[in-house]
Amino acid sequence: MPLTRPRKARQPMPQDRPDDAFAWIDAQRERRDRAGLVRRLSPRPADSPLLDLASNDYLGLARHPEVTAAAAAAAQRWGAGSTGSRLVTGSTELHTTLERELADFCGFEAALVFSSGYAANLAAVSALSGRDALIVSDAGNHASLIDGCRLSRAEVAVVPHADPDAVRKALGAAEEDTREEAAEGAGAVPARRRALAVSDSVFSVDGDAAPLAALAAACRAHGAALVVDEAHGLGVLGEGGRGAVHGAGLAGAPDVVVTATLSKSLGSQGGVVLGPARVIEHLLNTARTFIFDTGLNPAAVGAALASLRLLRREPERAARVRTVAMGLYGRLTAAGLTAVRPDASVVSVRAPSPEQAVRWAADCRAAGLLVGCFRPPSVPDGISRLRLTARGDLTEEQVGRAVDVIVKTAPTA
Amino acid sequence: MPLTRPRKARQPMPQDRPDDAFAWIDAQRERRDRAGLVRRLSPRPADSPLLDLASNDYLGLARHPEVTAAAAAAAQRWGAGSTGSRLVTGSTELHTTLERELADFCGFEAALVFSSGYAANLAAVSALSGRDALIVSDAGNHASLIDGCRLSRAEVAVVPHADPDAVRKALGAAEEDTREEAAEGAGAVPARRRALAVSDSVFSVDGDAAPLAALAAACRAHGAALVVDEAHGLGVLGEGGRGAVHGAGLAGAPDVVVTATLSKSLGSQGGVVLGPARVIEHLLNTARTFIFDTGLNPAAVGAALASLRLLRREPERAARVRTVAMGLYGRLTAAGLTAVRPDASVVSVRAPSPEQAVRWAADCRAAGLLVGCFRPPSVPDGISRLRLTARGDLTEEQVGRAVDVIVKTAPTA
Ligand SMILES: Cc1ncc(COP(=O)(O)O)c(C=O)c1O
Ligand SMILES: Cc1ncc(COP(=O)(O)O)c(C=O)c1O
Repeated sequence: MPLTRPRKARQPMPQDRPDDAFAWIDAQRERRDRAGLVRRLSPRPADSPLLDLASNDYLGLARHPEVTAAAAAAAQRWGAGSTGSRLVTGSTELHTTLERELADFCGFEAALVFSSGYAANLAAVSALSGRDALIVSDAGNHASLIDGCRLSRAEVAVVPHADPDAVRKALGAAEEDTREEAAEGAGAVPARRRALAVSDSVFSVDGDAAPLAALAAACRAHGAALVVDEAHGLGVLGEGGRGAVHGAGLAGAPDVVVTATLSKSLGSQGGVVLGPARVIEHLLNTARTFIFDTGLNPAAVGAALASLRLLRREPERAARVRTVAMGLYGRLTAAGLTAVRPDASVVSVRAPSPEQAVRWAADCRAAGLLVGCFRPPSVPDGISRLRLTARGDLTEEQVGRAVDVIVKTAPTA
Repeated sequence: MPLTRPRKARQPMPQDRPDDAFAWIDAQRERRDRAGLVRRLSPRPADSPLLDLASNDYLGLARHPEVTAAAAAAAQRWGAGSTGSRLVTGSTELHTTLERELADFCGFEAALVFSSGYAANLAAVSALSGRDALIVSDAGNHASLIDGCRLSRAEVAVVPHADPDAVRKALGAAEEDTREEAAEGAGAVPARRRALAVSDSVFSVDGDAAPLAALAAACRAHGAALVVDEAHGLGVLGEGGRGAVHGAGLAGAPDVVVTATLSKSLGSQGGVVLGPARVIEHLLNTARTFIFDTGLNPAAVGAALASLRLLRREPERAARVRTVAMGLYGRLTAAGLTAVRPDASVVSVRAPSPEQAVRWAADCRAAGLLVGCFRPPSVPDGISRLRLTARGDLTEEQVGRAVDVIVKTAPTA
């Protein structure tokens, strides 16, 4: 077996060329460097002294003793990994329990758990569209929804942010096309074109909510389906944290599909798609990020299940997040800063420039406060901002301290 | 806050149309039904009585007490989730330790951990190519590499399986194009076109190994980079399980990048990209499935680290997997079955038809043996097979029992 004989790890390569395969990377790195846009990891210790207003642990459950104990117990009982695709050995009864309870909580017929929210979004968008479909996608949508559009090979109409009229028009234009093709064709009426509108329920950058009722109406007027990503809605919006779709009375509708991550409010990892049973069955038969991906590890399944049960038992946790977010917003704007009125847990505070945003975040950090910093190219509109996340478990004292630091370190431009 | 008022979950929809948004799903479902291709989940209990030759837990570490204890301890110490993108709050010092030890073990300068092997492949392929690049991709590559090609928007040349000459030709043809364009252009020599060859190191379906040395030579002749997915190679091939790339003397080469999953030999979840430091730095700055995805959950990080250390301490585990696989192969072919000589842990046994493959697998299950069953459309060549995975912790008695069952239940066609 020639592959197994020990050899030295690195062969000399006389044929290396001066223009080596990755030379282009250095050129890109220099451009990033000059623009001050180089990203670095700053790994945290287990017990960070920083006050955290940057994580997505909205309900403060990632380190809740019940949740970490459930993660530990699941690893011990079910193993450290799921050992295969969900279709082979990667489905445990624990996965099924989580799926049943998530569907029940959010008000949907069925649910399917994925290894991440990213994978869930790739699956939902690509498996529910296809080469001949039309996808109408909000300009502010998350990267994973955008990648789902790309993978689908569908025609994608990107519409202005939070604009249901634009969605309606885009869906209508496609219907016209189909009718014209039918009229031109040999008399046979073609199958109506598959169409899908896709939107975050709460947008990651500014924390604003999508106009769900109007979006659903636009879709229904044209027989299109609606896919809503509740990454930032689950656990925060709707009755007891059931999500914005539930809050809008759309949960369980036959033409609405919800995706969510288990990594934010539920403090774990993984993703889920919720919808009619036939949609879920379709995904498990066709979605590539379901079929060809290893099932979510048992510890993450157990943790998400424990968080969900905790939230059910203590529904006031969801309302508390919104109260903290509004409190942050109120105090920051009272101090003269410009912020977006939060619809959920994310509070976006405007910074005068990318450089000042970076310095501001660094000054906060130096003063013991961890905040997010969004700047080009990760923001669609070129506006830099601090991104604060309200956690339901922040005390009044902590909120006060955070506001003090942010205001004191604010750029004076 | 209108979104938070409790409402009923389901609005009546007078405007529902008879041709509802998901009607097409029923039609697809019927086609699958007629073809006998409907997939169903069969969730397993914590203590399954079945003998498992279907999982990818090649070293039998997913339930090793050291590994599950490490998962549990990591969840307790670091939290159930990582709480954010690796670039914000999602990097812990535990992630860094795992990255350092993986890079060191596999012989690469640097490593970057992702939430899954799927995400790692999407990242490596798309961030190392781009719209103007050429990707030369083996026809037998895993779905996640194929999706990476699609996301990249590069030109993709799919070449016959395990055919380094075809790779060389495809890379050469692209170079010709570039030269011609340069000759036609206004005298300016354009930057050499970015090119990448992509291959599994061990192919998922038949368990055969890629001709890595020849692939690397083809790439070098044309200044192209080589990306190798070691999902089925890590922990099984190379000295002490360092992988096929290490075994071929290519680890640490400046133009070679390796991806792997932490969910097979390491018995956990997650993915990793290994390569030169500048490549890893490029990925953390540009790869969408790194930037816009929540970091791997601490339990999975801790488990993978424990498995890696165990494998280092007990390097014979890797060789044992290959011995078991060859043993299975030898006994099955001696009994008259047709199988592919295994290069690693996967043993592929030919079935006469899709229906017989399904019945064969079901008969094995009824006799207490869990085997994989691959059939169209998930096999590229239309050939149905049983897919057995050798685990290093299978005893001689278990291997004997498995062979007995497979031979006894074999279709007589
Ligand atoms: C709106 C949105 N959708 C999807 C995701 C992806 O979820 P995950 O991190 O579980 O992959 C995120 C963030 O990570 C997000 O903010
Ligand atoms: C060859 C190959 N690459 C990548 C993957 C994806 O890895 P993961 O399951 O960690 O997403 C798999 C299987 O799952 C695989 O077989």
